[in-house]
Amino acid sequence: MNEKTTLDLENLRDLIDGVDQQLLNLLRKRLDFVAQVGTVKHAAGVPIYAPQREASMLAKRRKEASDMNVSPQLIEDILRRLMRESYLNEKDVGFKQVKTDLGHIVIVGGEGQLGGLFSQMLTLSGYQVKSLDKNDWHRAEELFDGAGMVIVTVPINVTCDVISNQLNNLPDNCILADLTSVKTEPLNAMLAAHKGPVVGLHPMFGPDVGSLAKQVVVVCDGRHPEAYQWLLDQIIIWGARIVNEDAQKHDKAMQLVQAMRHFSTFVYGLNLCKEQADIDTLLQFSSPIYRLELAMVGRLFAQDPELYADIIFAQEGSQIAISDYLDNYRQALELLKAGNREEFVSQFKQVAQWFGDFAPQFQHESRAMLQSVNDMKSN
Amino acid sequence: MNEKTTLDLENLRDLIDGVDQQLLNLLRKRLDFVAQVGTVKHAAGVPIYAPQREASMLAKRRKEASDMNVSPQLIEDILRRLMRESYLNEKDVGFKQVKTDLGHIVIVGGEGQLGGLFSQMLTLSGYQVKSLDKNDWHRAEELFDGAGMVIVTVPINVTCDVISNQLNNLPDNCILADLTSVKTEPLNAMLAAHKGPVVGLHPMFGPDVGSLAKQVVVVCDGRHPEAYQWLLDQIIIWGARIVNEDAQKHDKAMQLVQAMRHFSTFVYGLNLCKEQADIDTLLQFSSPIYRLELAMVGRLFAQDPELYADIIFAQEGSQIAISDYLDNYRQALELLKAGNREEFVSQFKQVAQWFGDFAPQFQHESRAMLQSVNDMKSN
Repeated sequence: MNEKTTLDLENLRDLIDGVDQQLLNLLRKRLDFVAQVGTVKHAAGVPIYAPQREASMLAKRRKEASDMNVSPQLIEDILRRLMRESYLNEKDVGFKQVKTDLGHIVIVGGEGQLGGLFSQMLTLSGYQVKSLDKNDWHRAEELFDGAGMVIVTVPINVTCDVISNQLNNLPDNCILADLTSVKTEPLNAMLAAHKGPVVGLHPMFGPDVGSLAKQVVVVCDGRHPEAYQWLLDQIIIWGARIVNEDAQKHDKAMQLVQAMRHFSTFVYGLNLCKEQADIDTLLQFSSPIYRLELAMVGRLFAQDPELYADIIFAQEGSQIAISDYLDNYRQALELLKAGNREEFVSQFKQVAQWFGDFAPQFQHESRAMLQSVNDMKSN
Repeated sequence: MNEKTTLDLENLRDLIDGVDQQLLNLLRKRLDFVAQVGTVKHAAGVPIYAPQREASMLAKRRKEASDMNVSPQLIEDILRRLMRESYLNEKDVGFKQVKTDLGHIVIVGGEGQLGGLFSQMLTLSGYQVKSLDKNDWHRAEELFDGAGMVIVTVPINVTCDVISNQLNNLPDNCILADLTSVKTEPLNAMLAAHKGPVVGLHPMFGPDVGSLAKQVVVVCDGRHPEAYQWLLDQIIIWGARIVNEDAQKHDKAMQLVQAMRHFSTFVYGLNLCKEQADIDTLLQFSSPIYRLELAMVGRLFAQDPELYADIIFAQEGSQIAISDYLDNYRQALELLKAGNREEFVSQFKQVAQWFGDFAPQFQHESRAMLQSVNDMKSN
């Protein structure tokens, strides 16, 4: 680089530094205004996440951007990132308390991660929350006395036992809820153990989400839904979406969505380990999509094995889904061994047809994700 | 909502609208300044992607953000998104031409997607590019006459035939290169067919990347590397990173990185199709991570089956990797059927140990990705 080039670049970089200073000031300002929106909504008990308002605001901005020859996708991506930040900050304000005459809430397994998250959200919404962990059973009677709601969130393999043996003597009007990732058996156990209102919840997210905005909570009705409607309203105020589903249908879907997927990810990691693959070399070669896939496998193994064992071993039915995958894999491998490329292509086309419009939609979505994975790369 | 609340929210939204207007103006300004940087760099032939400058700029901004009580990650994410936009815009300026006395370039398979991308990048860098597609062989002699470089990018299963039968009479000093996703056989075929400079390239990205910034190109040296060093320099100016590797090692890694991964994704889609899973219901329940995984499967089927057949059927060795996965899957399924949770947890821990520091790193990375997937959700 000659001197002129160096000088020109330095000048331009100073100008960019100046713009970035203004940018930071604007971000601070916008976050403050949105926090004020949060305070107003909080006082009025309006949910923090308003999909329609968000969509119409984004549409307006895209139009304005386009008029200024700025890519509409750029402003949308930046605003979505800013909105995430604002959702995270909502927590500092707290949330409106929907039910003010409940009595206290006991979280059985409250020191677990998911229990901790619900405890935090409920406390931020003005409820009095008490935790009952596995060493606290001698205090159970005292803790349950006067409780308006008991939430069970203990490992799957002990959930039904805890419900049947320890939660069969709650106050009549107390709501009994659970957060287990299977629903049929815990729900039946709760209905058998308790005569009052019962509801099964499955929060479809990990304890590290930061904010519940846009997350999903599956609700399986048990008994007296009118008694716990406030809880669902409260969850909506936290920003989540409620999906009502029959417990058995939910469990069947989870065999595919959770058990089978986690199982095959587990085997993929096991396979890499047994092949003694060199992760550094793999990453060296990796395009964003493979880096992403490798990260999705690796992340599993940074987590609690018991949690995944819980999910995979929870339902007998999962074995069928997992075995079916094995059969399909074996048959596809036969095609490969026979060099039957034609049949491979034909099956590929069948699956593509079955995916229908979802395939291009997923391609579009994943392209955006891959671009943001690539953005994160530092070399 | 009462009237006061509605009014307060409207006022705040007007203020936010005003901030967003200023934000758009700043974005426009920043993109323009960075475009000027691009023009200066272009004239001087400096690569558009400067990892160190980028890292030090981001570190500075993070510090400034932190001082203003703005999340450092927020400003980093926004600036990375802006940088992506700027890389995309680089194309409008064009790129410095490293080799000015080359003669023209012929791309065999130039009407394919990857051929098209290279044709575009080379043209933007001032080279004269001619395309030779499968119906153009009668014009081959005329096209090759005086060519400084011939790049082959045809389907894998015909690559070696095309090289051996059609490219065995190129001008002596002409560079012969290919873009195939396997390297050993095409490289040997090129060395046998041509006496001049030979190089094997594997661009580790799809034709839809938009910009080559931060992408990887694997280079397998063939003959007379000094004669094609300019090409690697040119690729670096486009923003990509060059990874030098032995052809056989590259091919072995690709069995895991591409063939096996694509194969198991194919089977996953096949499995969903055979189970007649209801994608709508699955999505209804899907937390961001599963939505992402489903999108990664679905995207495959929006693409060309022949391309995936090419990759999966290309190497005999891939069958071994693919069979090994089947064996590991079968063994893990036996654990599940026997209810041997203890052994599952023990193997899980072994794999976690093998991943070592990569597991938490991947968890951290994937968390950022999942958050941006969640940002994209519109309801």
